[in-house]
Amino acid sequence: MTVTATPAPDDSLTALLHPRSIAIIGASDDPARIGGRPLAYTRDAGFAGPIFPVNPRRATVQGLPAFPSITDVSEPVDTAIVAVPAPAVVDTVEACAAAGVKAAVIFSAGFAETDDDGRRRQDALSAVARASGMRIVGPNCLGIYNSEIGFYATFTTTLEAAHPVPGGVGLVSQSGAYGSHLSLLATRRRIGIRFLVTTGNECDVDVAETIGWLARQPDISVIVAYVEGVADRDRLLASLALAREHRKPVVLQKVGRSEIGAEAVRSHTATLAGSDAVYDGVFRQFGVHRARDAEEMLDVAYAASFGAFPASRRIGLMSISGGVGVQMADEAVACGLDVAPMSDRAQARLKARLPYASPRNPVDITAQAFNDLDLIGSNLDVMLEEGRYDAIVAFFTFVAAAEAMVAPVREILEDARRRHPDHLLVLSIVGPPDVVEHYEAAGCPVFEDPSRAVRAVAALARFVESFDRPASTAPAVAPAAIPLPPPPIGETAARRIFADAGLPVIESRLCGTARDAAEAAAELGFPVALKIASPDIAHKSDVGGVALDLGTPEAVARAFTALVAAARSARPGAHVEGILVSPMVTGGVEMILGVQHDPTFGPVVMCGLGGVFVEILADVCFRPAPFDAAEAHRMLRELRGYPLLAGALGRPPGDVDALAAALAALSRFAAAHAGQLESAELNPVLVRPVGQGVVALDALIVPGTPEP
Amino acid sequence: MTVTATPAPDDSLTALLHPRSIAIIGASDDPARIGGRPLAYTRDAGFAGPIFPVNPRRATVQGLPAFPSITDVSEPVDTAIVAVPAPAVVDTVEACAAAGVKAAVIFSAGFAETDDDGRRRQDALSAVARASGMRIVGPNCLGIYNSEIGFYATFTTTLEAAHPVPGGVGLVSQSGAYGSHLSLLATRRRIGIRFLVTTGNECDVDVAETIGWLARQPDISVIVAYVEGVADRDRLLASLALAREHRKPVVLQKVGRSEIGAEAVRSHTATLAGSDAVYDGVFRQFGVHRARDAEEMLDVAYAASFGAFPASRRIGLMSISGGVGVQMADEAVACGLDVAPMSDRAQARLKARLPYASPRNPVDITAQAFNDLDLIGSNLDVMLEEGRYDAIVAFFTFVAAAEAMVAPVREILEDARRRHPDHLLVLSIVGPPDVVEHYEAAGCPVFEDPSRAVRAVAALARFVESFDRPASTAPAVAPAAIPLPPPPIGETAARRIFADAGLPVIESRLCGTARDAAEAAAELGFPVALKIASPDIAHKSDVGGVALDLGTPEAVARAFTALVAAARSARPGAHVEGILVSPMVTGGVEMILGVQHDPTFGPVVMCGLGGVFVEILADVCFRPAPFDAAEAHRMLRELRGYPLLAGALGRPPGDVDALAAALAALSRFAAAHAGQLESAELNPVLVRPVGQGVVALDALIVPGTPEP
Repeated sequence: MTVTATPAPDDSLTALLHPRSIAIIGASDDPARIGGRPLAYTRDAGFAGPIFPVNPRRATVQGLPAFPSITDVSEPVDTAIVAVPAPAVVDTVEACAAAGVKAAVIFSAGFAETDDDGRRRQDALSAVARASGMRIVGPNCLGIYNSEIGFYATFTTTLEAAHPVPGGVGLVSQSGAYGSHLSLLATRRRIGIRFLVTTGNECDVDVAETIGWLARQPDISVIVAYVEGVADRDRLLASLALAREHRKPVVLQKVGRSEIGAEAVRSHTATLAGSDAVYDGVFRQFGVHRARDAEEMLDVAYAASFGAFPASRRIGLMSISGGVGVQMADEAVACGLDVAPMSDRAQARLKARLPYASPRNPVDITAQAFNDLDLIGSNLDVMLEEGRYDAIVAFFTFVAAAEAMVAPVREILEDARRRHPDHLLVLSIVGPPDVVEHYEAAGCPVFEDPSRAVRAVAALARFVESFDRPASTAPAVAPAAIPLPPPPIGETAARRIFADAGLPVIESRLCGTARDAAEAAAELGFPVALKIASPDIAHKSDVGGVALDLGTPEAVARAFTALVAAARSARPGAHVEGILVSPMVTGGVEMILGVQHDPTFGPVVMCGLGGVFVEILADVCFRPAPFDAAEAHRMLRELRGYPLLAGALGRPPGDVDALAAALAALSRFAAAHAGQLESAELNPVLVRPVGQGVVALDALIVPGTPEP
Repeated sequence: MTVTATPAPDDSLTALLHPRSIAIIGASDDPARIGGRPLAYTRDAGFAGPIFPVNPRRATVQGLPAFPSITDVSEPVDTAIVAVPAPAVVDTVEACAAAGVKAAVIFSAGFAETDDDGRRRQDALSAVARASGMRIVGPNCLGIYNSEIGFYATFTTTLEAAHPVPGGVGLVSQSGAYGSHLSLLATRRRIGIRFLVTTGNECDVDVAETIGWLARQPDISVIVAYVEGVADRDRLLASLALAREHRKPVVLQKVGRSEIGAEAVRSHTATLAGSDAVYDGVFRQFGVHRARDAEEMLDVAYAASFGAFPASRRIGLMSISGGVGVQMADEAVACGLDVAPMSDRAQARLKARLPYASPRNPVDITAQAFNDLDLIGSNLDVMLEEGRYDAIVAFFTFVAAAEAMVAPVREILEDARRRHPDHLLVLSIVGPPDVVEHYEAAGCPVFEDPSRAVRAVAALARFVESFDRPASTAPAVAPAAIPLPPPPIGETAARRIFADAGLPVIESRLCGTARDAAEAAAELGFPVALKIASPDIAHKSDVGGVALDLGTPEAVARAFTALVAAARSARPGAHVEGILVSPMVTGGVEMILGVQHDPTFGPVVMCGLGGVFVEILADVCFRPAPFDAAEAHRMLRELRGYPLLAGALGRPPGDVDALAAALAALSRFAAAHAGQLESAELNPVLVRPVGQGVVALDALIVPGTPEP
């Protein structure tokens, strides 16, 4: 899918997340109750604007004058927090809209997650949002916060454990409990969460829109998202495109990878999870870092929040332990980083300073370096100046946490950062929080585990590669002028349709008699292949409906008769259009290209190498349609079998450019026929040597109106 | 490799690690210096036995009377700590041996890691150990400790940050800095390191022996090891076998996975890393958990240290967040755990208690459960009684850390553990250390991250599977009575040698004339294949030396002439033994079986599926020779292409029993010819349908004396 940055949507989330005034409906005098916490948290955090508690049964709430209803609040309210029982929510929200409230956050449960009544109540909320323009978060959510202005529209108890620290991370989560869990873990690691948005049942504001809004905030440096399912494909893709355009790293966890997990998502959120492999394709397309768990997500967000990104994959590794140098090199190679050796000159310089060091890369400076601190600085200088590494990871463990070390080592690092400000310098240090903070203050992310440090560097390097990619050239695709014919579409028609779409399908002639077939063969050139043409017979070789490698007119004529007889005998009622005669083509690498309808992403294109790659290894890649040839190239390179296309095992390199062009053409076809295409397949597609193009030998189109 | 538990080696490490008295040679009065720290640490820790500082220049050291030399210590010394400059070490150690000291720990650097002089000094140390029986750790190591008796023969500064807590983990590391790093991280997570041994240059005591010693200690529950290279294969394999026999989990990190990493190990330790894939095979064979990084290693060690192991892979997942339930299910499936659904009856019981819960598995009890704590206990009961899960992971995050929750929730968990003592109950909770300790005291491992909790459960389940496996039936293999002939070994000879070793090589006749060939073909049955037999021509099809699918005596005779001519023209000087005639066999799955000489493990057997699996995907498995058929079966099941053998894509299931028997036979052959075999290969081996066996079509044996 190509998404050019859409015109900025209206900025109505700004009132929600930067309110100048707030109301709390269902406000409680008890700061430990759900209706009491937002007031207590927000007031304690020093929120500057007015807070209007609404509670018809009290004159004051936690010392503030209370209002009987939102209607009684005479001043303008940007955001209302709704903490009333489910049956009262719709009326309350309507009253808010009528009162001109700009946004509402609904904590209450008892909506679409419960029963049909709840679903109806939720639909009513969506209708209010649409009709009034008031933005609604929830229902059934744990709320939102803006930590910078002390606005805590949430009842999460994590705030009792720790308040967010300053920072530029935007966090959005469909799960309230997990969003709070992440917020707490982040705070404990001194990752500054600026905004938290838990979206709950998403009657209006969803994860996708929130990502887009965060992408446009200049003070947000990293976006962290937790996703169970996506309702609006276009909004998600537009938001991810926007984040990429604004060079905002998106770190995302999407659950439902396994079938059991996907089933659990269905029962839990009543949304279809869609194919997980399609999500993978989308995330790769937009350079989203998909994290496996909370720790990986926060590691990447933490490293990204320092704002220094390596310009390339070249990584320098420095260690006071030779073994850990090896370990970091292993991890770097596994992550696709380039552990390039130091130049001979640089190695000689290092060796002169520390004869027992291994100066190649990883550079083992030994613990000795801490007896002669200048070594650290001079090693860093040599690595940054002569190693041309864009990132350095240095393993100092507890040695750098010793009291006497902190100030001088920090000075060395600050100095190195000053002289090489474009480089990323990551440390692996084990020490108490105050020591770690000292090193962080020098601009260096600090990890306990050296492997995790290396993985984070790899993630940052991939962000840069994604940000630096040229914008997609895939055109916006209008619906096809000519709709697909009704089902079933026979192979002849399918070939014609694909050929019209610019796809290289093998030339073939539909013949009604043995003589026609022999003549067609002579025109096409021997040898040829014959195949029954019948929309009623899908698997033609199963019924003896295929004859290959026919070298003479006589052989063609005999085969014609045999194929017709075989088809009649196997499927007496089948409509036989005739016999297709094609040139016999062999050789090249066999690919499968297909179009599927994904419940989340609509028309998606898949590709894979034929045989064991698709069938045994599930080695296939997906992208939502349409996309350009550059994206198709990236898709192909994700295949584990890609070396076969590139010319492994002594084969000539395949015509990958032609294959990428075909994939892009197929994606435009899929997009143009979205909504009338159940599936389509070109299988096999022979990828011939460079310059000889690709050719599809078989074509299948299944029209239909996919499930919405 | 099969290793039956060797007779217990002499227990000389016990004096080393349980000394009744210690001497410190090079003892310093300054507790911050290398020679001062062991004394300070050990005395502060309350070590009960006498400590003898040796320092010729002082009358007292840190208040203790000093001795001019070890010879002057009149009482018996179990372990001497040697902290003197490298040139003085050999004399010092000789004096220790002469004085009857039982073991020595040498901190000093300047041995094999530096230059030839250092290598000679180290060899002298090895000689002292061999001649005297005194055991030596190091040189160039960070020392050892036994935390239970307060014996700290180490100068690591990590002990200033935190002292080890009580526990049953034995930690052994070839790297001093990394061993200390692990010790500190473990202590911070309240993982009790009982013994730390850093082995340094391993002039005598090595990682392998230490693992074996730890395996025999009744108070050690988990063994954690960090390895860069292994010098003595037999000792390692015997120790791993011993650990398995004693049901002691071994968690191990072996660096040098990547080529760059292996190269760095070489330059760092001057030992060959060996093939990393062979290490993988060894670790799988002995049920060793190979960890990717420190965190994974400590996660598994931590979980194992609770002593509760799940009897099966069935896992029950309980969560107060539906999304996290999904996430845990994803992770469990990815780890090969069985996320079996609850029975209908059990689901009905859960649903009756909490109508909005998802009761299938993962079980979503919602945060509501914490308003009605009985729900947690009753849910646990239903899952343990009716779900028949051997392990439960429960995600409670910060909610269970609230002050009011800790006592009652802990009581519920203790109660569940009491009633189901054989079950593993793992929690995902975020809270301060004292809260976590409360839950740990209930017998439950606690992880912040739910995914990490699930991965740890999977590791424990795999340990149990390994412990429960029957002992290997592979015989100890004596060297072959008949040595291999000198090189080159032609295909005919290779086939005969393999056939004698019980391997199914295709029948073939070596023919000298076209007439002989035609007669042989008639006897074998048409069609047949012909192949040039020449020890000088390795790639026969490249020179036109192969003819396939010959159906008549005439075709055989013609092919004979053509093959001989082709061989003569392509390789004029080649010795042609004749032409091999074999029955034409096609069909079945193609495998490659081979023997290689690994620099660490000696003769190792590899297997893989032919074609892209080996060539593109490097989908091969290794085991050191010899092994039995059961091990061969496990090896085959590790292949990603295994489904093809088992009958995927509509093929009949292959004769995997016959294949496993052939692999085991090849392993016995490899072991019997260890030291005279450079490599051997059977390629292709056709695996035919069940009951039809396997047959090798081609055989290659390269004799030679491998590099030691």
